[in-house]
Amino acid sequence: MSILLLKTRLALELPPINAALDRAEATLPDSVRPVAHHIFAAGGKRLRPLLVVLTARLLGRTDTAVYDLAVTLEMLHAATLLHDDVLDDAATRRGKPAAHTVFGPTQAILAGDALLAQANAIVASFREPALCALFSCAIAETCSGEIREIEAQRRPQTAMAEYESIIRGKTAWLIRASCEMGALAAHATEAQREACAAYGEGVGMAFQLVDDALDFAPESVIGKPSGGDLREGKLTPPLRYYRDGLDAEGRTRFDDAFANGSMTEEECRAICSRIRDAGYDRRTRDDADKWLAGALSALGTLPDATERELMRQMAEYVRERKK
Amino acid sequence: MSILLLKTRLALELPPINAALDRAEATLPDSVRPVAHHIFAAGGKRLRPLLVVLTARLLGRTDTAVYDLAVTLEMLHAATLLHDDVLDDAATRRGKPAAHTVFGPTQAILAGDALLAQANAIVASFREPALCALFSCAIAETCSGEIREIEAQRRPQTAMAEYESIIRGKTAWLIRASCEMGALAAHATEAQREACAAYGEGVGMAFQLVDDALDFAPESVIGKPSGGDLREGKLTPPLRYYRDGLDAEGRTRFDDAFANGSMTEEECRAICSRIRDAGYDRRTRDDADKWLAGALSALGTLPDATERELMRQMAEYVRERKK
Repeated sequence: MSILLLKTRLALELPPINAALDRAEATLPDSVRPVAHHIFAAGGKRLRPLLVVLTARLLGRTDTAVYDLAVTLEMLHAATLLHDDVLDDAATRRGKPAAHTVFGPTQAILAGDALLAQANAIVASFREPALCALFSCAIAETCSGEIREIEAQRRPQTAMAEYESIIRGKTAWLIRASCEMGALAAHATEAQREACAAYGEGVGMAFQLVDDALDFAPESVIGKPSGGDLREGKLTPPLRYYRDGLDAEGRTRFDDAFANGSMTEEECRAICSRIRDAGYDRRTRDDADKWLAGALSALGTLPDATERELMRQMAEYVRERKK
Repeated sequence: MSILLLKTRLALELPPINAALDRAEATLPDSVRPVAHHIFAAGGKRLRPLLVVLTARLLGRTDTAVYDLAVTLEMLHAATLLHDDVLDDAATRRGKPAAHTVFGPTQAILAGDALLAQANAIVASFREPALCALFSCAIAETCSGEIREIEAQRRPQTAMAEYESIIRGKTAWLIRASCEMGALAAHATEAQREACAAYGEGVGMAFQLVDDALDFAPESVIGKPSGGDLREGKLTPPLRYYRDGLDAEGRTRFDDAFANGSMTEEECRAICSRIRDAGYDRRTRDDADKWLAGALSALGTLPDATERELMRQMAEYVRERKK
């Protein structure tokens, strides 16, 4: 199977999406505009706006105002990245220096606040209560996921259900909201909206699981040191499988080092190798496949049109992602 | 004139307002709930929710759901205080240790994000586009005011018009939005809504100007060192009048020290005394009176009922505030 059609369509949709982002950027207060520009110019796949546009088109909305609506989710996404990078003191984002290292933490936090505020105002300007409710829910769920992720950091006993609930909030909700937003913008039926939500949630969960698996890929493949999540104390599925495979003594030792952040660089590297050798990253990709199967099944209930095929290719892209 | 009636009504309205705040607090993620509780428990006048309730009642809304709506503006206000205190590294807030000094900056920022998200979700749950538009506008204006205030810091040439535009954003907009929200909640006429907005803006501008004047009152009166704004590099009106009164040489010296933050403690104290002796704080209160006159004139167009008298007393309270 190929994702050629998706790539072609993305090339067509990117200019109006980026133009709408430029319009939104221009409404920000002067001093934080360069911060927003920095994070948008650093790239990003524009996955969320693209999903808004595809679902809206699939369900019959044909105008161009949908681009202004679509970028609100990219703005919210950028706002969370700006705040997260300050809180994690991350050095880079999208291969470029993180915004707070260039503009300082104050400007990064204010730019995040301003982006969120402006995105919210754009959504409100559409004067549809369901859109406002959806967007405010997306903000709250994303924020809560991020907060609970920080709570769970360096806790080796975090349950799998709690992990799933965290990634549902911090990643899947925004992707789900993108698809629901497209459905709402097209005034779709309730059943169509639910199918879009289910598709988005499945793709979102799979996206994060594949990300978690990729985090243990060799540095030569991903262009950054393997095991970043391990170092940050995030018990993602590959690491959970590794921990489950340890004997009691090994697990106690692992739990201590994980909780205290006292693992040596050599131990980290050994764990990354072991995860790859045992195929725990592959197993995490299999978990992602289950979510994608659910997403595709929901997608099958939507109208048979070009955009539906593109959304199928999107699921394939998420599954096959190599970096 | 007396504000006795206002105090009596406040005593009646505080319990349902605080109960609504408790309900909202309970919906926050576990780890940030204590941070929100800290800032709400530290006190605060609940001026914003009270104004929502008074305007809503004045214009005919009688139900209790209005309390849940009213506290959204207190939540937004608390969110901005949490973020501001991190950015300014403030030691205290409302006479208690600032939240970030107790819970750390990460938790303070996340709690601010969560409060804003939850407040937005509560407003959206009322399913009225005009309320969503108003609230998103209030977030954006407040955020922009705060950003421009930081931009203007330590700039002795900041124009009076720019200063007014900053305080309109950072303070007056939320108070104006409180009054407009009450009008919208009561499905008031457009003219009534505009009168509420004008009243709120006037009271909000006056509130900040009185605050600016009080900042130069003796420590024995305000319970904190005089001239905090001077130390932080904020060119508020009393300081502007002082600077305008200097000769060319004195002004150059002042501008340098103000811009570089190199003023000695002794110089600061001398400037505070001079401001009081010359009555520059009193002149700032006169400026506030002009805004209050506008507020009262707008108020006069609203129905003649108990709440209108309470809102008049509110203006009086703002004028007479001694600390």
